[in-house]
Amino acid sequence: MDTKTTTKETAFLTEENSVRTVNARMGSKISPRMKLVMSAVVKHLHMLTKEIEPTHEEWQQAIGFLTAVGHKCTDWRQEFILLSDVLGVSMLVEVINSRRPAGATENTVLGPFYVPEAPRYQNGTNICLDGKGEPLVVKGRVTDLEGNPIPGALVDVWQTNNDGLYDVQQKDIQPDWNLRGVFTAEEDGTYWYRSTKPRYYPIPDDGPVGQLLGQLDRHPNRAAHIHFIVSAPGYEPVITHIFPDDCRYLNEDTVFGVRESLIAHFKEVDTPNEAEKFGLKNLGQFKPFYFVNWDFVLTPSAK
Amino acid sequence: MDTKTTTKETAFLTEENSVRTVNARMGSKISPRMKLVMSAVVKHLHMLTKEIEPTHEEWQQAIGFLTAVGHKCTDWRQEFILLSDVLGVSMLVEVINSRRPAGATENTVLGPFYVPEAPRYQNGTNICLDGKGEPLVVKGRVTDLEGNPIPGALVDVWQTNNDGLYDVQQKDIQPDWNLRGVFTAEEDGTYWYRSTKPRYYPIPDDGPVGQLLGQLDRHPNRAAHIHFIVSAPGYEPVITHIFPDDCRYLNEDTVFGVRESLIAHFKEVDTPNEAEKFGLKNLGQFKPFYFVNWDFVLTPSAK
Repeated sequence: MDTKTTTKETAFLTEENSVRTVNARMGSKISPRMKLVMSAVVKHLHMLTKEIEPTHEEWQQAIGFLTAVGHKCTDWRQEFILLSDVLGVSMLVEVINSRRPAGATENTVLGPFYVPEAPRYQNGTNICLDGKGEPLVVKGRVTDLEGNPIPGALVDVWQTNNDGLYDVQQKDIQPDWNLRGVFTAEEDGTYWYRSTKPRYYPIPDDGPVGQLLGQLDRHPNRAAHIHFIVSAPGYEPVITHIFPDDCRYLNEDTVFGVRESLIAHFKEVDTPNEAEKFGLKNLGQFKPFYFVNWDFVLTPSAK
Repeated sequence: MDTKTTTKETAFLTEENSVRTVNARMGSKISPRMKLVMSAVVKHLHMLTKEIEPTHEEWQQAIGFLTAVGHKCTDWRQEFILLSDVLGVSMLVEVINSRRPAGATENTVLGPFYVPEAPRYQNGTNICLDGKGEPLVVKGRVTDLEGNPIPGALVDVWQTNNDGLYDVQQKDIQPDWNLRGVFTAEEDGTYWYRSTKPRYYPIPDDGPVGQLLGQLDRHPNRAAHIHFIVSAPGYEPVITHIFPDDCRYLNEDTVFGVRESLIAHFKEVDTPNEAEKFGLKNLGQFKPFYFVNWDFVLTPSAK
């Protein structure tokens, strides 16, 4: 008999020995990482079970919930990622995997709406192709930790329109590549572009995760944000957002994506003089707009 | 803004505050039990995440695994229960929900193969309808904690045939109700019946849980066993197994269903005299058989 590490003491599961018993069953032909990970999974699953002491009915409900989450998953809908998101696990994994030096731009979740290969634009271009919402100017610099400009750095941006939806969610309604584009930092590190102020929006809540949020008395809304991937040769790329400081969901983003260092002041500009100061004559007839100044600070590439 | 219990301190998720931050998001219109359960789920999920520090790829693998488990689930295949089983969670829930007084028959998992409404038989009936395997006699008493007989107690039994398969897994091969039946305790509490010695068998291992077992270098086999539900008016019904003490997988049942108190000595009887002593003349022409003496001890009904 292949007894592995099972001994008399760990042959039969009891409340007292349950973690040791299950983990002793692993064989010798297992990768060290797999052993570490699954030992921890079993330990915490059992600690959780002992802490809540589920009834049979509650255990059945948990099985039923996980099954429903699985059945909701398709090639274009990932309900387990949504579950990981609303329980803060996705963001925790992000945070753990990107401990950056002080002063560097912090990262946050990529989210499901990134599309690679967006059009490259001249600085100053307006990426709001449907003309909806409140005009916005985003301007800043890409630098290293010492404040030196990184000319040629790419600033890849994407966001929702004024209805809180991405172009890929409204393929028949929004123009292709609406509110997406790639800008290039100039010699002094400056990038800038025109857009529309982003809006908060709900995550897809018509599935079991939405039902869970209801049972937890939580809303499904993400705080408004603009997505960026900023990259340059020799530097670690950073996947990040900026969050307008006036969004009502700023303090309760349902996927916990907000980091304090990523909250940006979106300044309302209502004087033509100010517009002129920012060189925004090409906005044409003046109307009030929002302006955000945002710098990205990259860290040297790990390799 | 409905700020719930979110405060500045728990607005933005960090490694340090992650559990508090996610749990503070729950609203006030939530049942106390749901709050306790989900707070513990979040706590252990985050403790686990911090302990193993998964890479993005590992997190993706976990999402992919759970999705595959969900997609394997159908009306007749419950892969999440299987996952719960092989991680010892199902058995732990059983153990937690049935802390019985010393001397009472301990319970174990129901398993997926129980079929209610099996035929009622006279004591002594042979439930092995396919004639396969080594003959077995099971005999014992149903009593209360003081040893008093419980006449009329029902002993509902089911097991695999000699191929390690239940009738419902071989509907076209095994006779209907093969190796299932309900027996009634006599005035002195005695029940007895004839059957075949049960065999170990693998759980369904053609899905993601089977793959996981492979990665853990674990076999998929359950220790051989006979299932029972024993019930009587005024007593708590007990769902239990007995396990032959000579099964090679006794110490490593893949679903951790074995309890030390449920291991039974299956005595090999190879003399006609012994057969006569057990009143087994109706076995016809003598051949060696197994005999197990097994008493069930019920506890008073909780209500």
